[in-house]
Amino acid sequence: MSRIPCVAFQGEPGAYSESACKNMFGTNIRTMPLMLFEQVFDAVKSGKVPKAAIPIENSLAGSIHQNYDLLQQTDLKIITETQLRIEHVLVCHPDSSLRKIKRVISHPQALSQCSNFFKRRRSVQAVAFYDTAGAAKEVAASGDVSMGAIASIHAARNYKLKILRRNLENNHLNFTRFLGISKKANKKVMGKMKTSLCFEAKKEETGVLFKMLGVFALRNINLLKIESRPIPKRTFEYIFYLDLEGHPGQKHVKNAIEQLGDMASRLLCFGAYPQGTKTFIQ
Amino acid sequence: MSRIPCVAFQGEPGAYSESACKNMFGTNIRTMPLMLFEQVFDAVKSGKVPKAAIPIENSLAGSIHQNYDLLQQTDLKIITETQLRIEHVLVCHPDSSLRKIKRVISHPQALSQCSNFFKRRRSVQAVAFYDTAGAAKEVAASGDVSMGAIASIHAARNYKLKILRRNLENNHLNFTRFLGISKKANKKVMGKMKTSLCFEAKKEETGVLFKMLGVFALRNINLLKIESRPIPKRTFEYIFYLDLEGHPGQKHVKNAIEQLGDMASRLLCFGAYPQGTKTFIQ
Repeated sequence: MSRIPCVAFQGEPGAYSESACKNMFGTNIRTMPLMLFEQVFDAVKSGKVPKAAIPIENSLAGSIHQNYDLLQQTDLKIITETQLRIEHVLVCHPDSSLRKIKRVISHPQALSQCSNFFKRRRSVQAVAFYDTAGAAKEVAASGDVSMGAIASIHAARNYKLKILRRNLENNHLNFTRFLGISKKANKKVMGKMKTSLCFEAKKEETGVLFKMLGVFALRNINLLKIESRPIPKRTFEYIFYLDLEGHPGQKHVKNAIEQLGDMASRLLCFGAYPQGTKTFIQ
Repeated sequence: MSRIPCVAFQGEPGAYSESACKNMFGTNIRTMPLMLFEQVFDAVKSGKVPKAAIPIENSLAGSIHQNYDLLQQTDLKIITETQLRIEHVLVCHPDSSLRKIKRVISHPQALSQCSNFFKRRRSVQAVAFYDTAGAAKEVAASGDVSMGAIASIHAARNYKLKILRRNLENNHLNFTRFLGISKKANKKVMGKMKTSLCFEAKKEETGVLFKMLGVFALRNINLLKIESRPIPKRTFEYIFYLDLEGHPGQKHVKNAIEQLGDMASRLLCFGAYPQGTKTFIQ
């Protein structure tokens, strides 16, 4: 039996999520690509793999509520995080060149994020494909010199493609925040810590959120994220996601969370973990 | 010249966004499918079409920040909204049946949202495709009786496919909120109104958000949405999206927004419009 730990992720080999696995858990790991997020959570829950990497929010595309739901349903804990710069790379078959490219395939979101390139080159057609790493795989497999793909640098290297342009995206401020998850919560305190909570407000009452945030503001606890999400079945009820600076090992943080619990109809702690830094892939 | 107004949307004919066009602007319209969100905003900005429908948030997949960015960049105004129940439908070629289906194609998000179906039927393979309406089109065009697709009921009807299952999604609480946008702001007050704002906090200061929300709480103004979004270039600075009940024609709302403006480094009003209701497609 290999003792190299295995980390699950959603997507094809070379996906951005695979880079996040290595960022968070080091390069001495094996990775397990799975098709669905649910399968990724199941793999950790069942003990098939000890850890997984999941995207939770993108600076352009927003929070991935589905993964917040899966965190709640599976009761898995956040143990680490990373923010990955999403760099889109234009690639082609090794025998091709920029002049030969007539069509570029990629996920619609990636095509959209690189729309300036297509505006400048009217003769190149943007064609939607199901996945960025899948598009790189397709260009490699087809051998078609008129076809390019937009994918990650890892996918380009993985499928041995020629790199025509780096940083093809219109907006370079494109980051995805990934979480490392596990069955057991993180107990270590390392550097600046972050705690992630989710809670439901008891009932519609003007200013209820203002009061709830007071438990942190009046203790000088910094908030790093706040987001409301309507609960569709129950009109006028909301679930809130909150990231704060600190961890429940600190008495004032523990007290603030307890006071919030008294005001909320439901409160869940997703875990406390070291604050991630932004990572650029070279 | 036809006097029937034209409404732009992103996607293929039969896309959920096309249903949103009709929900918000009535059935006596023409619709213009465009490939990119940017093209949709450009079409309104340039006067090519008077109005457009854009998705802004989904109850499972989160806010579409890209469209918040485009709202800011183009200065277009929100004039109406609707919340559309996303119902995924399993379809096949008219000559096929559930027993003949070996593969089901759809957008990865739709496949993921219907994962329980694939768990129950292990012999049916889920295959990723770039778009839900595009998947329906593909099944119709291919004539392949072993291929199914997951798409909207409109796409199913549009491509004259057989409907095998309705409500295929695991979680029926799947809603997308769409906005109707235009060059000119809405001036009419009709029923319960909502106002959408975006603002930046001046600097990192503990409790700054608590103080800012105070301008609404202390005037008994209900908040309907709050979301923070980090500004990647500027560490520790945030942009906030806020929806509140009421409109700037009301003195206390106007005063609250003005007071917020004094505290924010930037404040933008996306418009005031009637609060949308949830719509189920029949």
